[in-house]
Amino acid sequence: MNVAIIVFDKFTDVDLWLMWDLLNRVRLENWQVRILGDKDSHVSATGISISMHGKIEEANRADAVLFVSGQGTREKMRDENWLKRFNLNPEKQFIGSICSGSLILAALGLLKGKTATTYPTSKIALEGFGVEVVEKPIVVNGNVATAGGCLALQYLCGWTIENLVGQDWRELVLKSVQPVGEGLFFKDVENLIKLYATPTKAKTV
Amino acid sequence: MNVAIIVFDKFTDVDLWLMWDLLNRVRLENWQVRILGDKDSHVSATGISISMHGKIEEANRADAVLFVSGQGTREKMRDENWLKRFNLNPEKQFIGSICSGSLILAALGLLKGKTATTYPTSKIALEGFGVEVVEKPIVVNGNVATAGGCLALQYLCGWTIENLVGQDWRELVLKSVQPVGEGLFFKDVENLIKLYATPTKAKTV
Repeated sequence: MNVAIIVFDKFTDVDLWLMWDLLNRVRLENWQVRILGDKDSHVSATGISISMHGKIEEANRADAVLFVSGQGTREKMRDENWLKRFNLNPEKQFIGSICSGSLILAALGLLKGKTATTYPTSKIALEGFGVEVVEKPIVVNGNVATAGGCLALQYLCGWTIENLVGQDWRELVLKSVQPVGEGLFFKDVENLIKLYATPTKAKTV
Repeated sequence: MNVAIIVFDKFTDVDLWLMWDLLNRVRLENWQVRILGDKDSHVSATGISISMHGKIEEANRADAVLFVSGQGTREKMRDENWLKRFNLNPEKQFIGSICSGSLILAALGLLKGKTATTYPTSKIALEGFGVEVVEKPIVVNGNVATAGGCLALQYLCGWTIENLVGQDWRELVLKSVQPVGEGLFFKDVENLIKLYATPTKAKTV
């Protein structure tokens, strides 16, 4: 199982890293998460430079492809040379976005005639693609999901994990990041030890 | 206002980045957040290498000092040479931790005779320092706060922001990351535009 996270310059920091951290809590031998871009490294909205694991074309072979958000989406949604490097298949792949990442899904034609959600500051731009924007944390249409509001990454990653490796992993991963006393409890310690027993398969960058 | 985030090898990715992203949503001219370590760069639990803004001694002059979590805390809580580089003052500084970062606060003598919270897998180790561990997302004693469970970073960063720049910034920052339809709404767009109008003061690393 391969999950591709698509990054570009001026991405929203937490949208990448909450996604990355949650997805890497799945500790299965055949599970791999890779951060992909069109350069060797990309710089976040706050100026953090991060090396990529590979190029965006890899996404065309992934089981799931998730797009981050940020100011950079405004440029990428109009960048025909960048967009045409993707050849995603919503019949075979799970495809999702957080916040303004939905603008890229729309530009790729994946939201045609569908409802979707996005960050409030991207609503008008998404409607410009003819998409009906609804005020929900996650909107799923077939194998395509859009999520809005950074912490809705819990829903988007949960959806991805459940579809690829089942509901038990979804529940264990999401529980592991909840506030203590509000979804995560000291009695959960045995399950957490089980969760962290297998080293992450993440590749060093 | 300077906020220092203390990092070490094998830190939990989301604990740094959710903290960093939330704190950088405060867009005031005199607000700065810096990531500090004892090397030029540190590697996360999943193998992500990140450059530091400066060395840990800077924390001794910061208005707030926040410790991240991760496997690395087990080594650092016993590293006398590292611990003695800190000269923190809970009378003058706000000092906090997320998850197992509480082990470092305890090792620094900041939790003596106090209650605290931590991640479930760190409860026994924290009790080993004579700390009474309670099952709450955040425990505040004077200027020292401990938070448990990654998403309790909302409480820890909210506490930090409120103490340094007031309740309005706390509310605006925390609202900006909530799931759409569950705390963040399309009608909030004007406030979000105001929030993002000022460029972040984050320094490129």
